[in-house]
Amino acid sequence: MSNIDIEQANATAVERMIESQPVLTGLGIARDVIPGMRDNLLLHAGPPITWDRMSGPMRGAMIGALIFEGKANTAEEAEALLISGEIDFEPCHHYASVGPMAGVTSASMAVYIVENQADAAVGGGNLAFSNLNEGYGKVLRYGAYQEDVQERLTWMHEVMAPVLKEAIEALGGIDIRALLAEALHMGDEGHNRNKAGSVLFTKILAAVVPEVAPDGKTAAAILKGLGDNALSVLNPVMAACKASCDAAHGVEGSTIVSAMCRNGTDFGIRVSGLGDQWFAAPAQVPDGLYFPGFDSSHANADIGDSTITETAGIGGFAMAAAPAIVTFISGKPSDAINTTMEMYEITSSEHKYFTIPALDFRGTPTGIDLRSVVETGLTPRINTGIAHKEAGVGQVGAGLVRPPMAIFEEALVTFAEKYGF
Amino acid sequence: MSNIDIEQANATAVERMIESQPVLTGLGIARDVIPGMRDNLLLHAGPPITWDRMSGPMRGAMIGALIFEGKANTAEEAEALLISGEIDFEPCHHYASVGPMAGVTSASMAVYIVENQADAAVGGGNLAFSNLNEGYGKVLRYGAYQEDVQERLTWMHEVMAPVLKEAIEALGGIDIRALLAEALHMGDEGHNRNKAGSVLFTKILAAVVPEVAPDGKTAAAILKGLGDNALSVLNPVMAACKASCDAAHGVEGSTIVSAMCRNGTDFGIRVSGLGDQWFAAPAQVPDGLYFPGFDSSHANADIGDSTITETAGIGGFAMAAAPAIVTFISGKPSDAINTTMEMYEITSSEHKYFTIPALDFRGTPTGIDLRSVVETGLTPRINTGIAHKEAGVGQVGAGLVRPPMAIFEEALVTFAEKYGF
Repeated sequence: MSNIDIEQANATAVERMIESQPVLTGLGIARDVIPGMRDNLLLHAGPPITWDRMSGPMRGAMIGALIFEGKANTAEEAEALLISGEIDFEPCHHYASVGPMAGVTSASMAVYIVENQADAAVGGGNLAFSNLNEGYGKVLRYGAYQEDVQERLTWMHEVMAPVLKEAIEALGGIDIRALLAEALHMGDEGHNRNKAGSVLFTKILAAVVPEVAPDGKTAAAILKGLGDNALSVLNPVMAACKASCDAAHGVEGSTIVSAMCRNGTDFGIRVSGLGDQWFAAPAQVPDGLYFPGFDSSHANADIGDSTITETAGIGGFAMAAAPAIVTFISGKPSDAINTTMEMYEITSSEHKYFTIPALDFRGTPTGIDLRSVVETGLTPRINTGIAHKEAGVGQVGAGLVRPPMAIFEEALVTFAEKYGF
Repeated sequence: MSNIDIEQANATAVERMIESQPVLTGLGIARDVIPGMRDNLLLHAGPPITWDRMSGPMRGAMIGALIFEGKANTAEEAEALLISGEIDFEPCHHYASVGPMAGVTSASMAVYIVENQADAAVGGGNLAFSNLNEGYGKVLRYGAYQEDVQERLTWMHEVMAPVLKEAIEALGGIDIRALLAEALHMGDEGHNRNKAGSVLFTKILAAVVPEVAPDGKTAAAILKGLGDNALSVLNPVMAACKASCDAAHGVEGSTIVSAMCRNGTDFGIRVSGLGDQWFAAPAQVPDGLYFPGFDSSHANADIGDSTITETAGIGGFAMAAAPAIVTFISGKPSDAINTTMEMYEITSSEHKYFTIPALDFRGTPTGIDLRSVVETGLTPRINTGIAHKEAGVGQVGAGLVRPPMAIFEEALVTFAEKYGF
């Protein structure tokens, strides 16, 4: 028997997660700010994957990123380059980054910078990054890469990003933990419903953007873009959750899950006490509500790094805070309560800062314990958008999904082997 | 026996209330836009009252309004004028207007203009007005009238109001019914908790204000002012509720309450089928949570026209939508649910557009039926801010209050006499 105290290790890991203080401190170009980022590297959502196994939306986003980078003029040129071996593909997670859906991030892209301002004693000081949210419709994160997508990306990078950078810095940063705590009292769960968070984000920025923008028209366009996009805060929220989860990662002897993510083909997890190893298996197609004209036959398997929200104790885990979400993902408001209640069974703690008014301000279930998942047979509940399986069609619905149980079982076996239980 | 069909009359009144379409279409100076407004008239919250019976905050606001108008330079000069008989006092309600707390509105003040854009067949076409919200601290609506209050009012009128007017017009109006419907899904109840509504209001305006403001600094200051004030949308919301309730007023044979308001001394109601008559009795002191350093001995009796929200089916009636409000007014989240459930017992309908996710999207209890109040012994539940009884100290807490039962009994007796039941 090992002399590792799992309970103590988990308490340490989850304390680091909960006591993290993720603050959005700025915005920069990936190659300048993400350590290790380079021009021939494309970051992507989920665990590692090769070109031949990538789904439609992931491939489309890769193509779009190379066109955005000016490395290709057409999809054909991009594909040739992508299979040539000259471009490296690596998970965002390997670079302290996260991206929704395809999550493809290339060297010239602007990224939000989130700093965990907690004391080093509780794991603070780390950085995390996420790209900018493009809004709805035909967007890169769903694998669209055509001209209008490129035009939007160019405007976001040339016009919006410099203004946001200046505004965030002028504000001295934006406390994302505080913003999320407030948004959870305003009907958000922080993953699939970020309406309140996005308007809070917009109103915080609106106090500064008109002063730092080059002119009133540009300021208005930026604020309208942020305000009309109910997901505008998703990317900073994801980076904040990544910063929190990374703080909890690497605690020797801990069975706490420190990352969950999907690349559209596989669902992968990492565990705090199991280093950099991924445990991955085929991702499921979410159950949910489809937009008119679409059904599950059009759906791609689960995709995106946004499950970092559930890993950090919000998203599906905080659904009881967001009863109105059922109009979007199907179900009844009582299902939202039940989802959160179920997640208390597989988590080791209740969040100190994220609370749910309808549950008498109980903290959200936080810190997925591998052992509890396997013992109870309950996998984490995840709220998610559903991507069309063909590149660039976009979102076709939203719903709930669970990771495959096999990856938790495999991780637990590995844990037992490593620590000699 | 009368041959009036009360059920039919009430159905007509409540349909007009629910089907009203209050849209914030602009902003103007009271003397220019409120029919009948004149320079020697001060509008105030609540039912009619004379100077000698006015509470501290009401008197303070009257003094402040005369200083703002340039009719007095000091409180003493103002008081002399107020008791001279040269100034008329009349309820806001007599001028299609409503104002929070003291609600004092003078001829030079800017007011929001809300138009009920429903068809004339369901009572549409009427206008309603409300003054601008000054934010927190020492403000006119709590009876403060000193120099800093005047400076803030001057900035609001000279700088903010012209920009808001242009922005609202450039947007083609702001649909307040839609905004409220969304805010109720984001943890607001629309009276004492308007956090979500105020950030939604700010983000809608943020898409235009930078373009119509004279410069970026001014745009930023206006948007910061709106965004930091969790009550910035309260006044347009109150005007919207007034437009809805006025549409329901004047239906022959209806026992539906079409106005509830307080002047800090008396609580008054009007009834749809009883014309312009007020039924009034002494207002209570609210039960609630006091800010540090204050208790009920400091509290003024219930004050303000904001009970127009409960009259229209939101506020205390929609508390189940806003479980987080209990941190502000005391109680448990289950009390919020119970409050709404109780109000179904005294209302004739459920709102079609204002729904509560936690109650499976049930419509809010709407249309207070005088008969049900008297029969059940249940008076309406009202969420409210609590004013200090001395002029200008400001808000000292927030809580729940009920109107005196006597006014409902008196109204029912009058109804019986008028219609010969």
